[in-house]
Amino acid sequence: MQGLHLTADLSGCRRGTPALIDVAALRTLCLRAVSDAGLQAVGECFHPFPSEQGEPRGVTGVLLLAESHLAVHTWPELDAVTLDIYVCHRHADNSARAEAVIAQLLDAFAPRHTERQALHRGAPP
Amino acid sequence: MQGLHLTADLSGCRRGTPALIDVAALRTLCLRAVSDAGLQAVGECFHPFPSEQGEPRGVTGVLLLAESHLAVHTWPELDAVTLDIYVCHRHADNSARAEAVIAQLLDAFAPRHTERQALHRGAPP
Repeated sequence: MQGLHLTADLSGCRRGTPALIDVAALRTLCLRAVSDAGLQAVGECFHPFPSEQGEPRGVTGVLLLAESHLAVHTWPELDAVTLDIYVCHRHADNSARAEAVIAQLLDAFAPRHTERQALHRGAPP
Repeated sequence: MQGLHLTADLSGCRRGTPALIDVAALRTLCLRAVSDAGLQAVGECFHPFPSEQGEPRGVTGVLLLAESHLAVHTWPELDAVTLDIYVCHRHADNSARAEAVIAQLLDAFAPRHTERQALHRGAPP
């Protein structure tokens, strides 16, 4: 199954962005980005890490997609976030949709710096 | 946050492997692989795709880890599976644990061919 996997590792994210520390905000952001891009969520899982010494810690969340998955991890204490979106091309080339999801999430977290990688996935038949 | 992300795209998987089509079998396999490797699951989400014309279709599943995530997608009609494990190195170098998870899953699916990639993740501070 051929597919595209995009990663983005963000640093210097905008402090105070709700989705850095709040599961509900992260969930809303992810669902909207996926829906706006024309991808289909079929499952979800979000987890808040417990605060340490009164300081909020990260949240992590995954949307299962009909087209594969979106995963987000945040480290608010480092102003850092990592993004993964993996789309298979079974019924259509979903590359542009994957790019649109990353763009919307980058807009939300407003990092000063982003390291991006693109993997072309898929074993030969 | 520095980390290691391993992908493996499997083809020619052993037909009849329960985890190719059965959510409970895939869940058990993933939880055991993660636990055996010394990683910590903190959340999970598994989804079976509906059968088509009486033929089983794939299952997809994610474990959220304290160390990041494991994602598995199967396409039994293609004898194909994709694996992702992403571990951050916040409290320890988890590279060997990630490799151990991949090894256990490869053993279970017994593919004839595997395409592997390793991404070193993490934006500079």
